[in-house]
Amino acid sequence: MPDDAAVVEVPGGGSLVVSVDSVVAGVHFDLALCSPADVGWKALMGALGDLAAMGARPLGALVALCVPGAGGDGELALGVMAGVAEAAGVSGCPVVGGDVSSADELVVAVTVMGTVDGGVPVARAGAVEGDTLLVTGPCGGSAADLRSGGGEAYCRPVARLREGTVARLAGAHAMIDVSDGLALDLHRLADASGVGFVLGSVPVAAGATPEEALGGGEDYELVIAVGEADVAGLVDQFAAAGLRPPWRIGAITADPGVRLAEGRELGRLGWQHPIG
Amino acid sequence: MPDDAAVVEVPGGGSLVVSVDSVVAGVHFDLALCSPADVGWKALMGALGDLAAMGARPLGALVALCVPGAGGDGELALGVMAGVAEAAGVSGCPVVGGDVSSADELVVAVTVMGTVDGGVPVARAGAVEGDTLLVTGPCGGSAADLRSGGGEAYCRPVARLREGTVARLAGAHAMIDVSDGLALDLHRLADASGVGFVLGSVPVAAGATPEEALGGGEDYELVIAVGEADVAGLVDQFAAAGLRPPWRIGAITADPGVRLAEGRELGRLGWQHPIG
Repeated sequence: MPDDAAVVEVPGGGSLVVSVDSVVAGVHFDLALCSPADVGWKALMGALGDLAAMGARPLGALVALCVPGAGGDGELALGVMAGVAEAAGVSGCPVVGGDVSSADELVVAVTVMGTVDGGVPVARAGAVEGDTLLVTGPCGGSAADLRSGGGEAYCRPVARLREGTVARLAGAHAMIDVSDGLALDLHRLADASGVGFVLGSVPVAAGATPEEALGGGEDYELVIAVGEADVAGLVDQFAAAGLRPPWRIGAITADPGVRLAEGRELGRLGWQHPIG
Repeated sequence: MPDDAAVVEVPGGGSLVVSVDSVVAGVHFDLALCSPADVGWKALMGALGDLAAMGARPLGALVALCVPGAGGDGELALGVMAGVAEAAGVSGCPVVGGDVSSADELVVAVTVMGTVDGGVPVARAGAVEGDTLLVTGPCGGSAADLRSGGGEAYCRPVARLREGTVARLAGAHAMIDVSDGLALDLHRLADASGVGFVLGSVPVAAGATPEEALGGGEDYELVIAVGEADVAGLVDQFAAAGLRPPWRIGAITADPGVRLAEGRELGRLGWQHPIG
């Protein structure tokens, strides 16, 4: 499993952090539970979560939209793009290009480009023994909303872009965004880093169960592995930036066979993609 | 109608030319006429055609793949990605990121990133009165193949990347790739530039009709508007680069109301997108 995003060197100087993410009706969202604008919002935020996990800030997005109906459903397309535009405004990520096609079902594929402004992107693979594990917010809210028929966490998730940049500047060793489930994504970070982990309790979103907090996807909170000596500085810098303080949820161990939550083996709880 | 691709300034110095293009089963291709690998090839080449039209060389691509079937069809996905990889190899455009989802139908959305190496990208809007119109090859081959049940032009089109870069360096004022039809794409170039055109005869691909040469899409040949004084130099530089000499097909006029082919009004022949 590679990082959340790829890094492309740009002739003339600079580099770009890029990622693509797509959402498909019936797979990633249910139009009975969210509006077309929500779908557009979720599609862009899902892609931006990958930039956040690299500690990158967004520069722009390209949107490929496939809309059902012979000739395409113009109203649906406009609704989706309105939600993309809202999320773009909130995130400071202008939509610089797009493509619209007709199709059997609604598909939104979003490519995002970002920068670490001359810094080094944070990879999944950098966690080392003794690192503290932090998470930027309670998890499971999106899953709880999905179970209960919709809601803000499901329809309007927010990529933790500023948190990602501040964590990178504070010396984070590794990061991943919770797109498929805190447990599964943490396993991926540990796999990439060749380490294990010991989790304590994790913050549970209002209305969510502890199982949803561990296995629910699309929260887009960031899991951060950072050296113990840098935790206090990171927390201070979150506060200085006006960000919610991160939760301390566990630690990295040297043995990649150790994957514990509250003393018990933690399964790879979360959304497993069908392929690849 | 904007340019074929957008330009993104990258902190640290460079800039990137970026575009997204998607192909949908039943809309942009027919799996009875081409293999999964052909679909992947066509998807990447279609996106690269937009870079070619800006005079950019590719740096990398991101591919969002939606594959039908519960859990997704792994064999189909691998076939498509094999074709993407083939086209990537031929074009010098590495695939740097991707995303796979299940869906009701096969959709391939490709984002490409390129560079003009410190130069200025060629826009659609730069054509001026007196410019000569050139095309890099015969048109209508893809449409003829589609009519006759498949073939190389339909299944394996080639983006004119080197031609685009050489034309840019030779001073081309405006370019567009023939993705939707020579006539329609030429109208778009003229619309963007606020000019008219007078076409003579255009080169017709083997097996194609003159109507297919004007109205058939997905040829990906480049239409180039260049000052008459620079035509000879451009032709020389094509030859020096080992490229097929371009065809002279007409000229740009000042009056945007003049849109003639062989003395008669030229309609907007070509593939009209359903939306936008």
